[in-house]
This record gives sequence, structure tokens and C-alpha cells, in this order.
Amino acid sequence: MTTTQIAIKMVLDRWYGSITNANKLLSELSNEQLEKEIAPSKNRGVYLLGHLIAVHDDMLRLLDMGEKHYPALYEPFIKNADNKAVLEPSIDALRSMWTALHNLLQEKFDTTSTEEWFSKHSAVSEEDFAKEPHRNKLNIIITRTSHLQYHTGQLVLLK
Amino acid sequence: MTTTQIAIKMVLDRWYGSITNANKLLSELSNEQLEKEIAPSKNRGVYLLGHLIAVHDDMLRLLDMGEKHYPALYEPFIKNADNKAVLEPSIDALRSMWTALHNLLQEKFDTTSTEEWFSKHSAVSEEDFAKEPHRNKLNIIITRTSHLQYHTGQLVLLK
Repeated sequence: MTTTQIAIKMVLDRWYGSITNANKLLSELSNEQLEKEIAPSKNRGVYLLGHLIAVHDDMLRLLDMGEKHYPALYEPFIKNADNKAVLEPSIDALRSMWTALHNLLQEKFDTTSTEEWFSKHSAVSEEDFAKEPHRNKLNIIITRTSHLQYHTGQLVLLK
Repeated sequence: MTTTQIAIKMVLDRWYGSITNANKLLSELSNEQLEKEIAPSKNRGVYLLGHLIAVHDDMLRLLDMGEKHYPALYEPFIKNADNKAVLEPSIDALRSMWTALHNLLQEKFDTTSTEEWFSKHSAVSEEDFAKEPHRNKLNIIITRTSHLQYHTGQLVLLK
């Protein structure tokens, strides 16, 4: 195993470890708990769940792995702040999306080569990438893991 | 720049980016705010600050960069749960430790070579490392960044 392959393994291990922790937490939280605010006047659990799905869904596009599967989540869970008047989708529907999306991402990641991980992500131009080769697909995994951890630290407060 | 060097840069960039975000947040939070619980009956901000310093202090040892600077923080901020009866150190003292420690870590990281980042950390045996080469120093940065993000997501609730 080369140091480059080891680096990819470390980054993906931390992503999968973070997803596993989030899966465990979500399985322990009831829908009623997810409807509560993580702290007084802060986001509800369901908003953070929808937000994480919407952000991870966008990884498909950033990683050149296809189109978003759940574009309807952008408006209520990224563009807009938490709004209790938004009743759709249901928490059960979000739970299904969460599982399906991460299974799909894993399938895609499993067939991504070392060269592909270090190739540019779709939000950077060829010109900028030539000067900034760290703006690659693997970096999307690093930043999204970081974001997931941030919100997992909030969701755990619902327990 | 080789892919290995790019990988190191990405991991360190995410560490420093997370520290910068935490610095900004800490500068915005008053001592009074840090004394509050992040959510009802959850950890106080000051506990999380002490906990992060204690965990980052231990990185010195794990990375073969010297001894812990603040071993007294282990008992109140890692071994034990949050306890309002623990009055020392003061929040101002913790703020100074936070800054000094991250300056020190940056100095150490700046002189760490590619080979060193991929060498074993101090909590794994030579024998295990031969089979599991991902248990290296760079992986300590990855896991500690993840941990920092988790608690930053909680500290931000004090705003």
C-alpha cells in the first residue's frame, strides 16, 4: 500500500466511522425526539437530518457521480432556516432517504480509483485546479466529514 | 507536489480551518456564556473548552512531539464528567492554554516531514503498525479534527 492509498483509506475510514456513529444515534432517537429543538430556540433534529441529507446528496454532483437524488430538499434544508410550518417530507421518509443515499455513496466510493480521488471536483475550474491540486474529490470527503461531525455533536443532545 | 504531499496539506488545512473557526467562536463568547450549559442538563462551555485542551495536549505525546504541557487537565476534563464544583483553572487561564498549545502544535507540525506524518503514532506497537500502516501520525490529526468539529457544533449553541 502506498502512502497515497493509505491517505485515501484514512479519509474514507473517518467518513464511514462518522456515518456509522450517526446511524447509531438516529436509530436511538425516536421521531418525537427528532421533532424537538437541540437546545432552546435552536434547530430541530429533523431540520439537521434533512440538512445533512441535502448536503450529502450534493456530494454526488461535486464528485461527478451523478445528479442529486433529492433536489427538493435544497429549499427547506439548505436555503432556508428551520421552519416548523414545513411538514414534508416526513421523518420516516427522511430516514429512508438517509439510508438509501449512504448506500449509494458507498457503492460509488467503492469503485473510485486513487487517480479519481485526486482529480478535480466539479465546482473548481481546470485552470484553478492546476494551481490548487488539493481541490480534489478526496477533499470533498474531508470537508463533509467535518460538517457531519459538527451536526452530530448537536443531534446527540436530543438523547 | 506529490499526491501524498497534497493529502497531508488537505488534512492539515482542515485541522487549521477547524482551529480558526473555534478561535473565532471563543473570541465571541464571554466567560459568562462559557459558564452556561450548551443545552439544559448538558456540559458547560468551560468543560468543553477544558476537554478540547486536554485532548489536544495529549496529541504531543501521541505524535512523539514531547510530553503533555497540562497533565492536570486530564482528571477534571477527560476522566471526570462536568462538575460545577471544580473551579480551577479559571476560564481566562484555559483561554491562555488554548492559544499557547495551538501555537506550539503549529510549530511542531511546521517541521514535520512527509515521512514522519506517515510513521506510527506512539499508541500503536511496531508489530501492529506493520499490519495497519494507517495508524500513523497523520491519522491522529484526522481523528482529532473530527472530535474538535463535534464539540464546536455544541459550543456554537452558547451564542
